[in-house]
Amino acid sequence: MNEWIEALQKHLPEKQIMTDLADRHSYSFDASFGEYLPEIVVQAKNKGEVVQIVKIANEHQIPIYPRGQGTCLSGGPLPVNGGIVLDLSQWPEEIDVSADDLTVTVSPSVLTANIDKAAREHGLMYAPDPSSAHVATIGGNLAENSGGPRGLKYGVTKDFVLGLELVTPEGEIIRTGGKTIKNVTGIDLTKLLVGSEGTLGVITEATLKLVPKPPAVQTLMAVFDDVRLAGQAISRTLTSGILPSKMEFMDQACIRAVENFQPAGLPTDAAAIVIIELDGHPETLSIEKELIQDIMKNIGARDTVIPESQEDAAKIWHSRKQVSPAIAKIKPTKVSEDATVPRSKIPDMMDRLKEIKERHNVEIVVFGHAGDGNLHPNVLCDKRDQEEMGRVELAVEEIFQAAIDLGGTLSGEHGIGTMKAPFMENELGEVGLDMMRRIKDAWDPNGIMNPGKIFPEKGQKLVLRSE
Amino acid sequence: MNEWIEALQKHLPEKQIMTDLADRHSYSFDASFGEYLPEIVVQAKNKGEVVQIVKIANEHQIPIYPRGQGTCLSGGPLPVNGGIVLDLSQWPEEIDVSADDLTVTVSPSVLTANIDKAAREHGLMYAPDPSSAHVATIGGNLAENSGGPRGLKYGVTKDFVLGLELVTPEGEIIRTGGKTIKNVTGIDLTKLLVGSEGTLGVITEATLKLVPKPPAVQTLMAVFDDVRLAGQAISRTLTSGILPSKMEFMDQACIRAVENFQPAGLPTDAAAIVIIELDGHPETLSIEKELIQDIMKNIGARDTVIPESQEDAAKIWHSRKQVSPAIAKIKPTKVSEDATVPRSKIPDMMDRLKEIKERHNVEIVVFGHAGDGNLHPNVLCDKRDQEEMGRVELAVEEIFQAAIDLGGTLSGEHGIGTMKAPFMENELGEVGLDMMRRIKDAWDPNGIMNPGKIFPEKGQKLVLRSE
Repeated sequence: MNEWIEALQKHLPEKQIMTDLADRHSYSFDASFGEYLPEIVVQAKNKGEVVQIVKIANEHQIPIYPRGQGTCLSGGPLPVNGGIVLDLSQWPEEIDVSADDLTVTVSPSVLTANIDKAAREHGLMYAPDPSSAHVATIGGNLAENSGGPRGLKYGVTKDFVLGLELVTPEGEIIRTGGKTIKNVTGIDLTKLLVGSEGTLGVITEATLKLVPKPPAVQTLMAVFDDVRLAGQAISRTLTSGILPSKMEFMDQACIRAVENFQPAGLPTDAAAIVIIELDGHPETLSIEKELIQDIMKNIGARDTVIPESQEDAAKIWHSRKQVSPAIAKIKPTKVSEDATVPRSKIPDMMDRLKEIKERHNVEIVVFGHAGDGNLHPNVLCDKRDQEEMGRVELAVEEIFQAAIDLGGTLSGEHGIGTMKAPFMENELGEVGLDMMRRIKDAWDPNGIMNPGKIFPEKGQKLVLRSE
Repeated sequence: MNEWIEALQKHLPEKQIMTDLADRHSYSFDASFGEYLPEIVVQAKNKGEVVQIVKIANEHQIPIYPRGQGTCLSGGPLPVNGGIVLDLSQWPEEIDVSADDLTVTVSPSVLTANIDKAAREHGLMYAPDPSSAHVATIGGNLAENSGGPRGLKYGVTKDFVLGLELVTPEGEIIRTGGKTIKNVTGIDLTKLLVGSEGTLGVITEATLKLVPKPPAVQTLMAVFDDVRLAGQAISRTLTSGILPSKMEFMDQACIRAVENFQPAGLPTDAAAIVIIELDGHPETLSIEKELIQDIMKNIGARDTVIPESQEDAAKIWHSRKQVSPAIAKIKPTKVSEDATVPRSKIPDMMDRLKEIKERHNVEIVVFGHAGDGNLHPNVLCDKRDQEEMGRVELAVEEIFQAAIDLGGTLSGEHGIGTMKAPFMENELGEVGLDMMRRIKDAWDPNGIMNPGKIFPEKGQKLVLRSE
C-alpha cells in the first residue's frame, strides 16, 4: 500500500476513509460533465483532520479535491488527476447567529438554505439564494461564489463573506477578514478565496453578513410575445429607479417544459415571461408595483399578472425552480451555461443565441437571472450521440465567444472548473491569466489543491463527448 | 545623471518631470505622518506613459509610488524609500456613464464626488462617499478601498468595482473583471487590487457599479446624555429591520469643537449625538422615521430632532463634515484612527477608549461611522512635544490592540500604509501575513511598487515622533 494512504489511515478514523471501488465511483462525478475515479475518499469532520490530510497530501504531492454535496455545475470537485477526494459534507453543521452584529458563523458543511432559516428566527436574512440552496453546502457556495435570483438586489456569496478560516495548501491554518463590516487591513484575502474554486486551500469556517429581513414581498409576472421586448423591459425597469429583489426570465421552451412537467398555469403560447419580486415596506411595494405595470405596458407586454395570494405567488416561483428538472426531461443531456453580459446587451445576447441555435441545429432553451445579465442558455442534447455532441461543442464555444464579444464574461455564477478553463485566455489575455496563475503557484507550490480547475492545461480543449 | 532618470526624460514630455527640491518637497507628505523626499516626480496622463514609467522603474529597480491628490490618512503615497512619485492627478478626467448597464467607467484622476454628480444626471447614484470625496481621486479611493457614511447601507468602494485596468509592476497592461454585475471567471483579481494600496500595480481605469438614486432622504438626530446609550441605540436600530443609509456618531468633544468652529446649533451639553439618514420612498421614510424615534426614546435618548427643512438637514450633515477641520483647531496635531469592531462591541470600545485616554493622559475625541462599528478616535496632540507624543504612541498602540481584542480590525477604511504595518502580524498571525506577502512577491518580484506599505520591515515600530 502507498505510504501516503498509510499516513492517512494513521491519522483518521477508519470509517472516514473509503477505498472501495463502489465508494470511489460515487465521488467520481458532480452535476457537470465527466467522470474521474479518485484513488481514495476521505471525510473530514473538523479542522484538525483537514490539517492532517492536507499536510500528508502536500508532503507526498498527491492531488486533493475538496467537495461538499457535489452539486457543482462546472466540475469544481472532480478528481481529474486521481488522488484524494476530501469530503466535507459529514462535518457537523454549526450555525452561530450573532444577531447584534448582524453576522453568522458557519461550518463548511451547512446547507445554504439552513443559514437563511436560522437568520430568519432573528428577523434577519442571508440573501444569497442559489437554486441549489436546499441541497448544496455553503463550502461549495464559497468555493464557487454562487449567485441566485436575489443577487440582483443583494449581490452574490462574495458580497456576504466577512471572514474565513482556511487550511492553506501546505496545511497551515489562517484567518482572513473577521466579524466587522469594514476591513482594509492589507490585501483582501477573504474575497480572493471566495470563488477560487478550492484551488487555494480548504475553507473550514466562514463568518457571513446578515441583513434585516424585508417586511414584505410582492410578485409580478409580465408576459411577452417577443423575446426582445422582454429584454428591453428588464433594462427599462432597472433604470426607472426601482431595484427589484429578483427579475427572472423564461423563454417559451422553458415555459412549455415546466407546464409539461408540473402544470402551474403559465401561458404556453407566450414567447417569454419575466417574473419579478419586489421586497420592502408594503406601502413602497404597492407604489412600485404600479410603476412596473406601467413600464411593462409601455414596452408592449401582452399582460401583467399580479398573483392574488401568497400561494399563487409561491406557485409562480416554484415553476421557475422547476425549469432545470423540467428541461432535463426533454433530452437526456443538458449543458447548462451561465455566460453573462452587461445588462443593456441582453437583447443582443438573445439574438446571438438564436443565431447559434440555428447555425448548429441544436436545441437551446434560455432562462435565468436576466436582471443582472446572467442568462442560463441550456443546450439540450444526448451525450450518446457523438455527432450531435460535436455540434453542441461548437455551439457552446460560440456562446462563450458571444458573451465575451458583448463585453461580458465566461461565467456569471457557475465557475470555470474544467469545462471553461480552455477559454480563460480569450477573456483574460495571456498576461492576465499569468498574473492569476502566479497567485496559485505562490500559495500552492506543489500544485496539489484541486488541480485541473480554472487554469487550462497546455492545449486543453472543450470536450463534451465521451472518449 | 542617473541612467533611469535619463530614460524617463527620453519617454516623457519635459513638463511632466520634476526634479527641483521645491517640487519634490510638495510631494513628500500626505494627510498622515512623516515626510520623505522622492528623487523625482513624474506625471502620467495616459496609460502608455504609465507603462513606460513602470518599465523603467522595474528595469532599474527604482521604487515607484502612485499618488492621486495626496489626501491619504495612512501614508499610502509616501515615498518612504526615495525613488519616483508617480503623480496621476493631472490625467484628464474621463467619466463615461452607461446608464442602461448601470455602470460608469472612469480615469484614475477623477474626483470621487464628480462620479456621483455624473450618475445623478441619469437618475443613478455612485454610493461610496468618503468625507474627502470632493478633493480625493477615485484612484486613491480604489487603492485604499475607501469607505464613507453611506457604507452602512451600500458598502464601500470595493463593493462598487466591476472591472479594472492595471499596469502590473512589470509594466504590462491587464484587465480584470468587466462591465457585468456577476463574474466568477477565475480568481477575483478585481477585489484583490482594490485596497492593495498601490502595492500590486497602477490602476489606469475602473468600471464602477451604479445604483438607482433613492427617491427621497430623511435626516434625524438623537441626543444622548450617556455615550453607552448611544452605542446601544445604534445596535437596536440595526436589529429592528431598518437599514439607514447613514448612522454617524459624535461625542461631546466633537460637538463642542464644531460649535466653536462653525456654530450649527448642536447641543453642546449632550454626551453624544447620533445622526441618521434614511433613504427610499417617502412613504417608507415616514414609517421608519416614527419607528426610529420610538427606539431612541425607549433606549433613553434625551431628545430626537427632525429637521424642518432640507436646509436644516444639510446644516446637520455639514456639521458632521466639519468635525475633522474643527478638532484640528484644538491642538496642532491630530492622529486620526479607524480601528473597527463588530457592531455589538461599540459600547465596549467606547469604554476602552475612555480607559486609554485616562491611563495615558491624552486627549481623545471620538466620532465616526458607528453604524458599521467604524469609529474614528482622534488623538489630539502637538507633535513638537516629544514627551506627549511618546504617550500618544502608547495610546494609539492600545487603541489598535483594543480593536483586535474585541474581535475587530486595525483599519476599517484608512488602510495600513506605513503607520499600521508594525501591527499587521498581531491581527493576521505570522502565516496569514506570509500568505499575503507571497502575492506581493509573486506580482512584484523586484519590490518596486509602493514599498514600505502594508508589509512591515523587520523590527518596524510605530513612530509618531520626529527623528
